[in-house]
Amino acid sequence: MSASPRDELRDPTRLGDAVTRPYPGSQKIHVSGSRPDLRVAMREIRQTPTPSVDGPRVNPPVVVYDTSGPYTDPAHRVDLLAGLPGLRSRWIEERGDVAPLDERSSTFARQRARHPEADALAFPALRRPHRATAGANVTQMHYARRGIITPEMEYVALRENAELEARREAYAAAGLLARHPGQGFGARLPAIVTPEFVRAEVAAGRAIIPSNINHPELEPMIIGRNFRVKVNANIGNSAVTSSIAEEVEKLVWAIRWGADTVMDLSTGKHIHETREWIIRNSPVPIGTVPIYQALEKVEGRAEELSWELFRDTLVEQAEQGVDYFTIHAGVRLPFIPLTAQRVTGIVSRGGSIMAKWCLAHHEENFLYTRFDEICEIMAAYDVAFSLGDGLRPGSIADANDEAQFAELETLGELTAKAWERDVQVMIEGPGHVPMQLIRENMDKELAACMEAPFYTLGPLTTDIAPGYDHITSAIGAAQIGWYGTAMLCYVTPKEHLGLPDREDVREGMIAYRIAAHAADLAKGHPGAQLRDNALSQARFEFRWEDQFNLGLDPERAREYHDQTLPKEAHKLAHFCSMCGPQFCSMKITQEVREYAASRGHEDVAEARRSGMAEKAVEFRRDPGRVYRPG
Amino acid sequence: MSASPRDELRDPTRLGDAVTRPYPGSQKIHVSGSRPDLRVAMREIRQTPTPSVDGPRVNPPVVVYDTSGPYTDPAHRVDLLAGLPGLRSRWIEERGDVAPLDERSSTFARQRARHPEADALAFPALRRPHRATAGANVTQMHYARRGIITPEMEYVALRENAELEARREAYAAAGLLARHPGQGFGARLPAIVTPEFVRAEVAAGRAIIPSNINHPELEPMIIGRNFRVKVNANIGNSAVTSSIAEEVEKLVWAIRWGADTVMDLSTGKHIHETREWIIRNSPVPIGTVPIYQALEKVEGRAEELSWELFRDTLVEQAEQGVDYFTIHAGVRLPFIPLTAQRVTGIVSRGGSIMAKWCLAHHEENFLYTRFDEICEIMAAYDVAFSLGDGLRPGSIADANDEAQFAELETLGELTAKAWERDVQVMIEGPGHVPMQLIRENMDKELAACMEAPFYTLGPLTTDIAPGYDHITSAIGAAQIGWYGTAMLCYVTPKEHLGLPDREDVREGMIAYRIAAHAADLAKGHPGAQLRDNALSQARFEFRWEDQFNLGLDPERAREYHDQTLPKEAHKLAHFCSMCGPQFCSMKITQEVREYAASRGHEDVAEARRSGMAEKAVEFRRDPGRVYRPG
Repeated sequence: MSASPRDELRDPTRLGDAVTRPYPGSQKIHVSGSRPDLRVAMREIRQTPTPSVDGPRVNPPVVVYDTSGPYTDPAHRVDLLAGLPGLRSRWIEERGDVAPLDERSSTFARQRARHPEADALAFPALRRPHRATAGANVTQMHYARRGIITPEMEYVALRENAELEARREAYAAAGLLARHPGQGFGARLPAIVTPEFVRAEVAAGRAIIPSNINHPELEPMIIGRNFRVKVNANIGNSAVTSSIAEEVEKLVWAIRWGADTVMDLSTGKHIHETREWIIRNSPVPIGTVPIYQALEKVEGRAEELSWELFRDTLVEQAEQGVDYFTIHAGVRLPFIPLTAQRVTGIVSRGGSIMAKWCLAHHEENFLYTRFDEICEIMAAYDVAFSLGDGLRPGSIADANDEAQFAELETLGELTAKAWERDVQVMIEGPGHVPMQLIRENMDKELAACMEAPFYTLGPLTTDIAPGYDHITSAIGAAQIGWYGTAMLCYVTPKEHLGLPDREDVREGMIAYRIAAHAADLAKGHPGAQLRDNALSQARFEFRWEDQFNLGLDPERAREYHDQTLPKEAHKLAHFCSMCGPQFCSMKITQEVREYAASRGHEDVAEARRSGMAEKAVEFRRDPGRVYRPG
Repeated sequence: MSASPRDELRDPTRLGDAVTRPYPGSQKIHVSGSRPDLRVAMREIRQTPTPSVDGPRVNPPVVVYDTSGPYTDPAHRVDLLAGLPGLRSRWIEERGDVAPLDERSSTFARQRARHPEADALAFPALRRPHRATAGANVTQMHYARRGIITPEMEYVALRENAELEARREAYAAAGLLARHPGQGFGARLPAIVTPEFVRAEVAAGRAIIPSNINHPELEPMIIGRNFRVKVNANIGNSAVTSSIAEEVEKLVWAIRWGADTVMDLSTGKHIHETREWIIRNSPVPIGTVPIYQALEKVEGRAEELSWELFRDTLVEQAEQGVDYFTIHAGVRLPFIPLTAQRVTGIVSRGGSIMAKWCLAHHEENFLYTRFDEICEIMAAYDVAFSLGDGLRPGSIADANDEAQFAELETLGELTAKAWERDVQVMIEGPGHVPMQLIRENMDKELAACMEAPFYTLGPLTTDIAPGYDHITSAIGAAQIGWYGTAMLCYVTPKEHLGLPDREDVREGMIAYRIAAHAADLAKGHPGAQLRDNALSQARFEFRWEDQFNLGLDPERAREYHDQTLPKEAHKLAHFCSMCGPQFCSMKITQEVREYAASRGHEDVAEARRSGMAEKAVEFRRDPGRVYRPG
């Protein structure tokens, strides 16, 4: 660790233009809710007009869901040493059920604050931690079950709709609303997401809004199968590599490419400080695996872990603002021998730590035995459970085995316990699973865990492609997302080989945005196909700039196009380098349309009548307008 | 076009080490059949031993299907000016039903031979073309239906088995044979592929062996849903970019990364010469779209196309040795208006050319009306049909529409006609299709085309990721491969944006090898999971070199690993950079096993008996061997 993060991150250009510049052809818009401080950020993508003989035809801008936070807003001045504004601070205060603490409740946090390194490493603008007042439960689930629609719920509703209703007419006029019926496997996607719908889903446990009261910087989002499929990106340094400044940059980079939540899986030194920098600068929920830090505190000796140490770690992190905790409470002692015959044993880090602890003590997992006490902490800060799949399969051979499903059933039991205390829960799943076994995972999860949101790593559908596991797993992720998984945990090309760098994060994120969107389309999400339609229209009309800008990675699309046709004039060309000017099929189709329009459609109708087609194929047409103008 | 390809390709180092070096840790082996000249090339991947307290445990080498031809064989001297040896020459001659021609039958081919450019451009070691003797039918389907097992069929059978039977014992001893039951959607995958099984499948039309009598250099392969799922790579220059030498290099590069067939889609100048260079140097079947060249001959004016010109082009290409032709005979005049309301009209180049011709003449497509005459040509050289999907959807909005399925039904009619003349047929499909509509494509194809092999582009499962369409489409390709598609046509990251370069070909190929393998696993192919098991064992035992070498792209895997842990010593390290030495879950699992082994398994058994587990989870164990040694 070389320079102090304060020095590194003080430089406002530290993040670099590539990380923070606005999306090309886009602007940040804010949609207002029922109160002046409820303004939901979205991205509006401009389109150029379509040339036509009757004069240019205007194409409406397209509004898309935006995870990038204020970083892509030119009106926002990035100051990593101050952190983001407290968007939710007033909402939390208004509820009158939390109180500021005079000092951090965690012994470890207090020690770190006094540590000689703190000056160099600690985030400078620390917030005063808050906690529920005595007897209060401050979870979104608690409010939901009492019939309260929180500003967070309203925010989420507006965000999920992405202005579809407000712009329906403009979209319809441009022919952007056509969509196929979906196949939802039991998902119920409303035409419009209302705040009440959000409340009801959270109350039922079918969705969660991870939103720690100590993370007011958060732009609320929801995870549930009756909403858009979400994507999580893992970042975090290890003992071997990467600095605090790099991790903050990776966070901003990950949300730029569409991360809905980010897990900080740091395992090296300075975990505490790294996390603080990340949370204070994060507009998306942050998840962690607290057992990693606990193990760090006992210098890697799993058998020395204790409930007291772990408890202090939970409180430490909850008061920093972590929004969800992965807790491997389902790795029960009797399940451990079920992994002995596996090809790849236990591959989850958290799972293997707990397994080692259980065997060393020959005692039941303390995360399981102390589950009620963990729930109390979660309820006091509104940290959501991400019940960890410590026994997930690490190879195709081990998929869907007894160990995996025994743990899943236990996670169902624990879900019921957490819900008794109104604590929000999602369930972690998959790993390596061949395609024919994916569906069983989803079905079992829905049954065992009473429709609590499923959050899956991949699954990787084969083991044989190290270096390309973003692809082996995007294949599985798209399918399990379609079947009902609420959030997909991305996998980068470096999986199994090394720690992802910035480009790996981008590759992994785009692969997973593709998987999530493919799942939304397949489920029949009302707003999903709109973007496909707009992009395809742009493509067909040779509006190159629009094609780039409507895509998931405008910069990459433009770069690829320019490798063969770099001139600006080619952005207006009615061909591309794949076929050359003579052969472009889209150009020929347009000529076919013009030709037919110029001769009228009688030829075609006559040809059909003349009986050349033995099969009667219904000629679906809009009379007098066989060929679309333009 | 700068230098002459003869000059460029004379240099034996032209292809470069990266294109032709043997796969790391592998050797080329040859499995002998019933005759001395039937030697099937495969790749054998060595494994290192597993360290163990009882001394190192040997791990067997793993044999995998190999598409790379002689190029990766150190015993083969590459000479691009001579072309590959005629592996099948004797087999073809022995059948006594073909005769050499004194000169090329095609007028155009004879003109090109006399053209002033010919000296500089033409392949120097031209073969004398052959043709069926009068009245003879030389297709593999014809032989199959007469009960003849050709050497090509035997070759294919040995190749598909990849030595699974011969090595079963060694694989079993190493624990590599475990596999999940597949879900085949009606596929029938035999435990061993016999030559008779191949014959029967070809006779029934459920599989094809593309193998023009003028392409004796070919290593035979089979396309059918009861065999391994195959992948095609498209190459080819356009008017805008790329030279003959580059295309030859791209061919060798594509088969290195696993292309089972290659389509030469060249559209620029020198199509004829480019194709000759490619075929003479190709160990995989070559497909083309003859209408592209026909259009070139009329300088891009589709309306000037004629049957006579097209016929001459078919004969020209058949005598060069093209193994399958895409023929857009299903783009019938009455179907064209069905595309008028589409978002992206007709996006197939061949389809749009034929549509334009039909409208210009207001006549039925001559490929449809002349289909019998086309069949005669196919039968005289054994060129297989790839019945083109000229009306495939170019956007999610247009998926599964009337135009697409009207054409598919027509392809079924044409299949029946081709089969009357024993001509081999596969059917082209998809394009852009959201996940929930994929299955319908497969089901309709099987029904309409009587189980003729399906050959699909992707499908792309969303339109919104230009620059990443290898991923949007690998998601769809894996699924449709699982449902029954026999061959997947790859898509590169440059799709919609530009012509793929070498790295794009690699990216596209690996994405599709993943899709094809994921499909084989899901169908339950008897030999598929073996490689996953071997790689996962290697991964779990920290045999880094084996993990790299067993993967689809050993070079990429090593490169990624070395970015964070470059030292050779780290290839033996029991950790990687993702978690660092302290935290590796696989290391911890091994410790868990050792711990349990040292204490015996009584603790665990006792813990279970003591009733800490409320649920009775069956403890599946091999008595006295709870933990695997090593």
